[in-house]
Amino acid sequence: MSKHTVQFLPYDIAIDVEDGETVIRAALEAGVHVNASCGGEGVCGKCRVLIEDGSVEGGISEQLSEEDRQKGYRLACRAAVKDNLVVRIPVESTIDSSVLKKQATPRRTAHIQEVNFEELKEKGLFVAPVEKIYLELPPPTAQDNLPDITRLISYLQLKHDEHRLEVTLALIRKIPQVIRENGFNVTATLVRPVRDVGKTRIINIQAGDTTRQSYAIAMDIGTTTIYGQVIDLISGDVLAEHGEFNGQISYGEDVISRIVYAEKSGGLARINEAVIKTVNKILGRIIRKSGVDPDNISTITLAGNTTMTQLLLAVDPRSIRRAPYVPAATLYPPIKAADLGMDLGEHVAALLYPAVSSYVGGDIVAGVMGSGIYRSKTLTLYLDVGTNAEIVIGNEDWLACAACSAGPALEGGGLKFGMRAAQGAIEDFSIDPVSLDPMIITIGNVRPKGICGSGLITMVAVMFEIGMINNLGKFERDLNTPRIRENDGVYEYVLAWGDETQIDRDITLSEIDIENLIRAKGAIYSGCMTLLNEVGMSIGDIEHIILAGGFGSYIDLEKAMTIGLLPELDADKVTFIGNGSLMGARMSSLTNRIRKDVAEVTKKMTNFELSDTNSYMDNYVAALFLPHTDMNQFPKLKSRLEQRK
Amino acid sequence: MSKHTVQFLPYDIAIDVEDGETVIRAALEAGVHVNASCGGEGVCGKCRVLIEDGSVEGGISEQLSEEDRQKGYRLACRAAVKDNLVVRIPVESTIDSSVLKKQATPRRTAHIQEVNFEELKEKGLFVAPVEKIYLELPPPTAQDNLPDITRLISYLQLKHDEHRLEVTLALIRKIPQVIRENGFNVTATLVRPVRDVGKTRIINIQAGDTTRQSYAIAMDIGTTTIYGQVIDLISGDVLAEHGEFNGQISYGEDVISRIVYAEKSGGLARINEAVIKTVNKILGRIIRKSGVDPDNISTITLAGNTTMTQLLLAVDPRSIRRAPYVPAATLYPPIKAADLGMDLGEHVAALLYPAVSSYVGGDIVAGVMGSGIYRSKTLTLYLDVGTNAEIVIGNEDWLACAACSAGPALEGGGLKFGMRAAQGAIEDFSIDPVSLDPMIITIGNVRPKGICGSGLITMVAVMFEIGMINNLGKFERDLNTPRIRENDGVYEYVLAWGDETQIDRDITLSEIDIENLIRAKGAIYSGCMTLLNEVGMSIGDIEHIILAGGFGSYIDLEKAMTIGLLPELDADKVTFIGNGSLMGARMSSLTNRIRKDVAEVTKKMTNFELSDTNSYMDNYVAALFLPHTDMNQFPKLKSRLEQRK
Repeated sequence: MSKHTVQFLPYDIAIDVEDGETVIRAALEAGVHVNASCGGEGVCGKCRVLIEDGSVEGGISEQLSEEDRQKGYRLACRAAVKDNLVVRIPVESTIDSSVLKKQATPRRTAHIQEVNFEELKEKGLFVAPVEKIYLELPPPTAQDNLPDITRLISYLQLKHDEHRLEVTLALIRKIPQVIRENGFNVTATLVRPVRDVGKTRIINIQAGDTTRQSYAIAMDIGTTTIYGQVIDLISGDVLAEHGEFNGQISYGEDVISRIVYAEKSGGLARINEAVIKTVNKILGRIIRKSGVDPDNISTITLAGNTTMTQLLLAVDPRSIRRAPYVPAATLYPPIKAADLGMDLGEHVAALLYPAVSSYVGGDIVAGVMGSGIYRSKTLTLYLDVGTNAEIVIGNEDWLACAACSAGPALEGGGLKFGMRAAQGAIEDFSIDPVSLDPMIITIGNVRPKGICGSGLITMVAVMFEIGMINNLGKFERDLNTPRIRENDGVYEYVLAWGDETQIDRDITLSEIDIENLIRAKGAIYSGCMTLLNEVGMSIGDIEHIILAGGFGSYIDLEKAMTIGLLPELDADKVTFIGNGSLMGARMSSLTNRIRKDVAEVTKKMTNFELSDTNSYMDNYVAALFLPHTDMNQFPKLKSRLEQRK
Repeated sequence: MSKHTVQFLPYDIAIDVEDGETVIRAALEAGVHVNASCGGEGVCGKCRVLIEDGSVEGGISEQLSEEDRQKGYRLACRAAVKDNLVVRIPVESTIDSSVLKKQATPRRTAHIQEVNFEELKEKGLFVAPVEKIYLELPPPTAQDNLPDITRLISYLQLKHDEHRLEVTLALIRKIPQVIRENGFNVTATLVRPVRDVGKTRIINIQAGDTTRQSYAIAMDIGTTTIYGQVIDLISGDVLAEHGEFNGQISYGEDVISRIVYAEKSGGLARINEAVIKTVNKILGRIIRKSGVDPDNISTITLAGNTTMTQLLLAVDPRSIRRAPYVPAATLYPPIKAADLGMDLGEHVAALLYPAVSSYVGGDIVAGVMGSGIYRSKTLTLYLDVGTNAEIVIGNEDWLACAACSAGPALEGGGLKFGMRAAQGAIEDFSIDPVSLDPMIITIGNVRPKGICGSGLITMVAVMFEIGMINNLGKFERDLNTPRIRENDGVYEYVLAWGDETQIDRDITLSEIDIENLIRAKGAIYSGCMTLLNEVGMSIGDIEHIILAGGFGSYIDLEKAMTIGLLPELDADKVTFIGNGSLMGARMSSLTNRIRKDVAEVTKKMTNFELSDTNSYMDNYVAALFLPHTDMNQFPKLKSRLEQRK
C-alpha cells in the first residue's frame, strides 16, 4: 500500500500514513488534537478540518454547511487520506500555538516483532518434531507373514534407518485396515523425541501418500480468551486462527475466583468441562476454516498460566492461591489430547508448556521461548500484562521472573465505564488544553460505550501532562469547564455527554478510576523495579523491552511512560509480540528444538516471589504517583513538564 | 494328610491314596474296574465291594441287603478310605484273573509343576517391577515452594538415588490432595523400566506409609474362560483367584467364529465390550475376595491368544483368519488399564503378553516364560491343548512353535453327548472286559449328563486296548452286549441307560464321536511330529513334556498315549502346569526379569505354519489311526497288545 504525508497546521507536524487512513487517526498518530465526541461515527460534526492541499475521499456530511464544504472543510473522522495533504485544524480558542506544540507527544506504538523463520532456520533451530514418511511396504505372503506393526517397523528400520521406534494402541487399532486400503502403500507419522536418547513414536498411519499434509494446532489458554491456530508444518504458515472467550469466565473473571470455584464440590469438573468446551469450539472452527483433514493433525501444543493449565488438566488448583503458592506440577508429560476430552484424533498428543511457578506460567515461558529472549545477548525486559502482570528480565545467560497482580483496570475492568477492547470502547483520546474538550476515538468508529485499557492510559497521560490532573491523580479543582464536576463526592471528567453515546448516559472518567489505574501501573512498575533490584540492576541496564498480551497491541508507549506504567526508555527499544503464549505454542509446534530448550530455560528462570521481597512494598508505595515519587526516573517527562511551566 | 494303602483283590494291585478318598476312585487310580453306572451318586448300587480288612466310612446304602452289610459289603462310590484296606471286587463273570490284570494300566496323571519362587530368587530372576517407597517430605515454605511433583522427584533423587523418573497425568491429578493429607508423608509407587535404559515411572502416590500393601493382578484371557488372580507383590502369594466364562462365548465358541462376528458392523465394539465386562466381573470378585484396597494395585498383566488379545484391545482381527494369517501386532506397548475400560485405578498399567504369530499367542509365550523352558537345558515339548493346540519345542538355546486346530472334541465339543468338564460329566471310565459293563465316574459324583474330554480319551483308550474297537475306531461288530447297537446307521456304545442319567436318555459314545477324537488327536500328534521333523529331531530326543491348559489337569497320560494323542514317553517325564498363561502372567507381575526376557524369547521362537509344511498332511493322515499307522512309535502299547493276543 502506498503512503501519504499529512501535514497538520498550525502545528507544523507531519506524519506518513497508509492510503485510506482517516484524517482523524492521522492526527491522533501525530499527537494533534481534534475535537471529536462521537468516537468517529461522524455524527457530532465537531471534527471539521480544512483540507488546504491535496485530496481526501469522503468526509462530507450534513453537519457541514454548504459554504464550509466549498471552502474545503471535511469531517476528519470520515475523510480518508488519498493523497499528500495539508490539513488545518481550526483552533477555536485563541491560544498560543507554541503551547499547542508542547501539548503532546506523537503517538508511538511498539514495533511488532514477528516470528522470523528464516533466521531460525539459519541458526539450526529447526528440528521437525513431526515427520511423515511414505512407504511402499511389501505385501505379506505365506513366507513373510510378519504382523502389520512389525512389517511397518522393520521397513522403517531397514529402508529409512529409523531406530528406537515405539508405537501406540491407537496405531495398532488403525493399522489392520489402513495398511490394506491402498495395497500396503502407507504414510507413517513419526513424532521425534525431544531428547536424542528418547524414542521416535509412530503415532499415525494413513493409506497412500499424505506426506504433504502435515499440520499441528497451537493454542493459548488465556484466563479471558483462548486462541487457536492451525499450522502447516511444511510451510510454517498459520492456516486458520480463532479466539473465543474462555467459557470459564462465567465462574469468575480472574484466576483466583476460578480457583475458588474449583474448590467447590464438583467445581473442578465443571470448570474443566467449560474450558474443554471452549477448546473444542475453537478446534471445530479453525479446522473447518483451514479445510485440513483432522487425521493430518499430529500434535496440539498448549500454553497457559499455571492455573489455566491445571484447570485444563483437571488438576486441583487450590494450593496455587494459598501461601506458599505451590502448583501441582510445572512440567507435564505428553498427554493424549483425546484423554483431555479434546475433539482430536486418538493419535494426537497434547503438549503443555511448562511453568516456572504458580504465577509465572506456561504462557510466559512460551513467550520467552517464542520471543527468543533466552537465546539473545540483549538484556531484555519481557512484560506480559493482563489482570496479572508477569515480568521476565534476562538474556541467554540468565533469566529472572516475577508476577504481580495488577488488577483489572488495564483491561478496562473495575472502572465505572470500563469495558474490554471491543467495539465502542474509547481507545484513543486527546484534549484541547485550553477548552478541555476531548477528541474521542472508539474501536469501530462508533459512538462510545465505555473506556478500554489503552484509552484509559492515554486519557490519564494527556490530562496529567497538560496539568489537568496532579501527580496524585486528582483533578485540579479550579479549571473552568462543565466537563469536570463533582458527582456523589467524587470528581469526574465527562468524556461524552449522554446524547453522544450509545448508552444514553454521560461517560465519565472519575478520580476513583484514575486511582485504579495508578494502583495497577504502580504494581507493574514496582514489580519491574523490585526484580531489577533483586538481580542487582537498574532500568538503565535494560536494552530491550518486549510487550506481550492483549494490552500491548495498541498502547501508546509514550503515554504509558508518562503515567509511569513503563520505565522511560527510547520507544525504538520497545517491541510488541502480541500473544506471546500463542507465538511460543506455534514455535514449539514447528520445532523440537524449542521443546528441548524449554526444560533448560524453565530451570534457568529464577522465580522471585514479590510478596516475600521486602523492597516490593516500598517500591509500590513510591510508584503510586504520576509518574512516580522519584521524577528522576522519568527525565524526558520531567524536562517536558519543566518546559511547559 | 495321611495316606492309606488299598489292596484290590483278586487283582493283587495295591495303591496309596489320601485319607477320605472314595474306594471307587482308589480303584480307578489303580486301574481296577468296578461296575458303576450312576457316576458315583450311590443310586445304582452296582459298585458293591467287600471290605476284607481295614475300615471305611460310609458306603452303607439301602441298595445293600442287611446280609451283605454284615458281610462287609459297601458301595465303593460312597465308602471313604480311613485305614489300610483290603478290598475284594466281586467278579461276577467267570474270567481268568490274569486277563483282568492285563486289562488296563493304572491311572497316571502328570506331576504338577508349581512355580518355585525360591529357585527363581536364587537364580537372580527377581527384579521387582513395582516398588513402593515411603517418604517424609519437607513441607513447602516461602523459601522452598517447589511444585508438589518437583518436591517428590527431588527428594527421590537426593535421598533415594532415584533417577530418570517420569510421571503421569494421573499422578499430577492426585498429588495436590494426597501430599497434604498426612503432613507431606507419602508413599510413592515406582514402576521399574523393563530395560536399564528406560525410565522409572512414578504411577501413584498415597498418604502415609502403604509400602506393605503392594499388589498386582494377573489374568489369562482364554477363549472359553478368563481367570484372574490378585497377587501379593511382597510374598508372591495368590490372595484370590476366580474364573468366569468369557462373555464373548455368546458370539461364538472358537476364535474363528469370534473373528467372523467382529467383522460384522459394530461387532468389534460389542465383542470387545463382552470381554471387558467379564474382566471387570472377575476383577470385582477377586478384589473383594482378597480384601485389598484397589489403590494398592499397581499393574495388571494379561495373557491371551492373539485373537483374544486383539479383541481385548479392540483391534480388528480379520486378517488373523485369512491367509497369510497376519496379526496387527505381536508386541504391545503398556496401556492404561482404565483406557481399556477396566475397573482399575487411573494409575494402573495393563501389560499384555507379546505373541509370536496369529496362532501362537501371548498365552503360549506366557506358558513358555512361566514354565521356564526358555532357560532350561532340557529339550522340552510344551503342549497347550484346547480347541487349538499350540506346540513349542526347544530349550534355552532355541525354540520352535506351531499351532494346529484340534477341533472341540477334546473339550467335549462336537460330540453327541459332549459337554465341558463340569458337574455330571463322565470324566473317568473303565470297562469289564468280559461283560463290557462300564464303570462311570462323573465330576461331582452325580448321575451322568454327558462326556467331557478326559472321559472321552479314557473311554476310547480302554475300549481300544481290550479290543472292543479297532485301530480305525470302529466297534467290533460281533460283541455280545446290548450296550453296543446301531442307531440310525451309526454304531454306538451305551455308557448309561436313560434311567441312570440326569437327562432321561441313554448316554452313548458313537463311532462318529470316536472319529472326532481321532481327528483331534491326529492333528495334535502330527503337529508335534511335523514340528520335530522341521527342526530335525524325533520324539526320542524329547526329554520332557509339559502339558498346559484345562485339558491336561486330569487326563490319564497312559490313556492319552494309548490313543496316540501324546507320544509314548515315560509318564515321569510329563509334567502339568495347569493354566500356563495365568502362571506366566503371575510371574511377570512379580519380576521384571521375565518381561525383559520375553522380547528376546518371542524373537527366538521360530514359528512354523503347519498348513504350509508339506509333511503335515502326510503326518496327519498317518495319525488317523489308534494309536498310529506306525505302531513302532508306540512300543509299550505294541508290547501290551501283543501280550494280550
